[in-house]
Amino acid sequence: MQTKRITNELLKNIKGYEDRDAYVAPFAKQPAHKMADTDSDNLKDHVRRDKIVASLKEAIEKCEIKDGMTISFHHHFRAGDKLLMMVVDTLAEMGIKNLRIAASSLTSAHNGLVAHIENGVVNRLETSGVRGKLATAVSEGILEYPAVIRSHGGRARAISSGDVKIDVAFLAASSADCMGNANGVVGKSICGSLGYAKVDAQHAEKVVVVTDTLVAYPNFPQSIPQTQVDYVVVVDEVGDSNGIMSGATRFTNNPKELLMAKRVLNVMTASGLFVDGFSMQTGTGGASLAVTRFVKEEIKKRDIKLSYALGGITGPMVELLEEGYVSTLFDTQSFDLTAAESVGRNERHVEVSADFYASIGNKSAAVNKLDFVILSALEIDTDFNVNVISGSDGVIRAASGGHSDTAGMAKISILTAPLTRGRLSTIIDKVTTVVTPGSTVDVVVTDYGVTVNPGRQDLIEKFKAAGLPLITMEELRAMAVRLVGQPKEIEFSDDVVAVVEYRDGSVIDTIRKVK
Amino acid sequence: MQTKRITNELLKNIKGYEDRDAYVAPFAKQPAHKMADTDSDNLKDHVRRDKIVASLKEAIEKCEIKDGMTISFHHHFRAGDKLLMMVVDTLAEMGIKNLRIAASSLTSAHNGLVAHIENGVVNRLETSGVRGKLATAVSEGILEYPAVIRSHGGRARAISSGDVKIDVAFLAASSADCMGNANGVVGKSICGSLGYAKVDAQHAEKVVVVTDTLVAYPNFPQSIPQTQVDYVVVVDEVGDSNGIMSGATRFTNNPKELLMAKRVLNVMTASGLFVDGFSMQTGTGGASLAVTRFVKEEIKKRDIKLSYALGGITGPMVELLEEGYVSTLFDTQSFDLTAAESVGRNERHVEVSADFYASIGNKSAAVNKLDFVILSALEIDTDFNVNVISGSDGVIRAASGGHSDTAGMAKISILTAPLTRGRLSTIIDKVTTVVTPGSTVDVVVTDYGVTVNPGRQDLIEKFKAAGLPLITMEELRAMAVRLVGQPKEIEFSDDVVAVVEYRDGSVIDTIRKVK
Repeated sequence: MQTKRITNELLKNIKGYEDRDAYVAPFAKQPAHKMADTDSDNLKDHVRRDKIVASLKEAIEKCEIKDGMTISFHHHFRAGDKLLMMVVDTLAEMGIKNLRIAASSLTSAHNGLVAHIENGVVNRLETSGVRGKLATAVSEGILEYPAVIRSHGGRARAISSGDVKIDVAFLAASSADCMGNANGVVGKSICGSLGYAKVDAQHAEKVVVVTDTLVAYPNFPQSIPQTQVDYVVVVDEVGDSNGIMSGATRFTNNPKELLMAKRVLNVMTASGLFVDGFSMQTGTGGASLAVTRFVKEEIKKRDIKLSYALGGITGPMVELLEEGYVSTLFDTQSFDLTAAESVGRNERHVEVSADFYASIGNKSAAVNKLDFVILSALEIDTDFNVNVISGSDGVIRAASGGHSDTAGMAKISILTAPLTRGRLSTIIDKVTTVVTPGSTVDVVVTDYGVTVNPGRQDLIEKFKAAGLPLITMEELRAMAVRLVGQPKEIEFSDDVVAVVEYRDGSVIDTIRKVK
Repeated sequence: MQTKRITNELLKNIKGYEDRDAYVAPFAKQPAHKMADTDSDNLKDHVRRDKIVASLKEAIEKCEIKDGMTISFHHHFRAGDKLLMMVVDTLAEMGIKNLRIAASSLTSAHNGLVAHIENGVVNRLETSGVRGKLATAVSEGILEYPAVIRSHGGRARAISSGDVKIDVAFLAASSADCMGNANGVVGKSICGSLGYAKVDAQHAEKVVVVTDTLVAYPNFPQSIPQTQVDYVVVVDEVGDSNGIMSGATRFTNNPKELLMAKRVLNVMTASGLFVDGFSMQTGTGGASLAVTRFVKEEIKKRDIKLSYALGGITGPMVELLEEGYVSTLFDTQSFDLTAAESVGRNERHVEVSADFYASIGNKSAAVNKLDFVILSALEIDTDFNVNVISGSDGVIRAASGGHSDTAGMAKISILTAPLTRGRLSTIIDKVTTVVTPGSTVDVVVTDYGVTVNPGRQDLIEKFKAAGLPLITMEELRAMAVRLVGQPKEIEFSDDVVAVVEYRDGSVIDTIRKVK
């Protein structure tokens, strides 16, 4: 019917178009897999208007997953995640081997991976954290390749730069429509922000959205847009909302923690940055969360407001927003159900990707505008280096998270930890594993006082003037030795079981197998 | 101070990390231009926390714009745009030559480009449309390279695929903060959705946000996120909101247009797709807009709702949303002030990028789920090919827009045009320029009846059953000849002045210089 006006021959004479193709037909250049599977005579029936497939297995087949590929997951459901094991179990049944799992983090929900590493289905793990049995197995050297530990910003950088090429991303979504528009705020089981998943969706070769709540098109909001989704799978249960809140987000009545929280506030107010429009992130951990309470009391007293709060967002942050004490919450991960519900309800509770949150790979991340970050630590050494990944026994047990991202970029990074935990000192000569370099740690608040990095003479002067209980790192370390003595040195073998990347992709430390 | 734990030497023995770098320092791998310009001893002062530069000239210098580069602009302010000419005037003063301008479209605000083409500052134009003096000059062969005409979806595809590499995007924003978070809904002059700009921001090498309304950090919403912005420039006036509404978005009292609009509604209801949850896009043009009114009356009567409406969004669409007759508006361009205000106020009035709207380069665009699109035309030929770019005199005068994107993907594309305009017939033997291929055009509604593409026998049967006034293309053409006679053939030279790309990047037609 159509008269062809343009030929490739004719284009050879057009400046700038010498190598281009002439038009053939409306869908001639549309890849086959993006079209509907039909023999219909009606051209319009060839447009694919539904991405639902019958099962995870069918999605895996259509994605053509092969041995050695990289599959990715997010951990927004934390301990309540059901998807990762469902997918890996299915891949195991299908006989796929040597997979690399690139997860934003791994939790107690993923202990089943030990068996799949033993049987060869999985041979590489890349994650922010590992916990429980799986962490112990990794520390014992179960993996063929060393595990890779990245910060949240570091993972976004690695994915956007191509250091980590994801073949197929499996994204648990609280709800999705037939085209793949998905979010974590509508559905049977909500998880709140899909901040980590956004990065995978943008960069993975194939994207499979898995949900237990299929909604009418178009789903709202479009945290994961249809433009990035290949297939949609509906399952009975994608995750358990109750798993979001973990021990690490508990509140405290511990007098020691409250004392430290109060000191953190004093550090903040003495710094000169506690003024109208300041910004902050608090980590998880009792003392960090208590800080939010004290900050709220103080800003009410001073009649000022925060510009934004960042990070893993918790209920107390949502209170600040809803009571008008902060203009915007940037939420890359909702740390409790209050936050998960709020991100779907409050427009100024903004879901942001891990890239926006903290990546060094873009033109500036939200962490770059932080005035304060309050962080916890497993170990801090006399060079101010921080360990948040391995225990004092040398075994992997926790997560890198946004620790080094925020410490590196905030105007003032405040570490808070009790000087001793049981018979162990937090302040030691040399941390078991460096996650956050000491040069980026500005202040350490313990139950024994406030310790300032010698690189921050400006703060030392301000804190002296404010009468804060200053104690040097050397004094603090000596105090620890008096209280609990010298720890026994851990004996490591030479085998590297994990590599710890700094947020820029360089290797800041390795974790070796414990003897 | 820090003990270096890892060396490149050591990494050579770690599987998968043989070629990686050891950590050096917190900002060792951060590109220089992303850091603050400071000699401060305080490490934290080296984080760049402000992207504002003093002038457009300074931004241009920092972006290192050189002869032959590609700079891009959006046309959300339409005839009210002030930025493009400001930038090109500045570049001219700086002596830069042979620039390629990749604009989402060009309007009457850009007639000044003629002088800059004449003086060699600009030698290439890529755009959806060209109008007025500039269009005439292009048709007369003023450019060294042929102009490139793309659909909105085609432009997004070309940019995301790398066919068009943007060196520097200059993005007019109604408001921005010091880090570049920008939008079109807050500020002195709003323009609504920044749908086209989103694509440029994501893919351009450098991004300069220009605004007349600097707001406190963080700006909300973040239509353009800080992660994509290099520099922010504050100027007196970035655009005039009153320029958004152009002649093409006027309402009609013309009885002929109302008749056609009514016929379009009859086509929609007779198609079988006018059921609860259907979706539509209406273009601009009197009859198209009148359709929205009739659709509203009909869905009220039937007590059904639209799932979504798409496109350039107009006031009548906002009414549908606010009165609950449509679940979601996807807005890639706000066609009037009512729409521009609504996209900032109504959460279900969703700002979407031109990529989400219509690109063939992603995994599915919003156009893929359209049931109906109602479009206007300058010329339609007996093969149903449509011209929306050149006049009957062969001179460029309008824009490709989302015409071929929506016609190609909607279940039913409905073209509406009066059979004659003055002494000219809309229905002709061969359109002057093919923008939308006839195989994607399903129905043509004129004041003389309803004409169905013979490829859609399914619709012909349905419309017969509904008693619609069907008329074949041959009958329609014969009628036109009776009314206005045969048009005089336009005489073209062999010189190609513009290339028309189909949405997939193939060349569907060229426009030649008129003799």
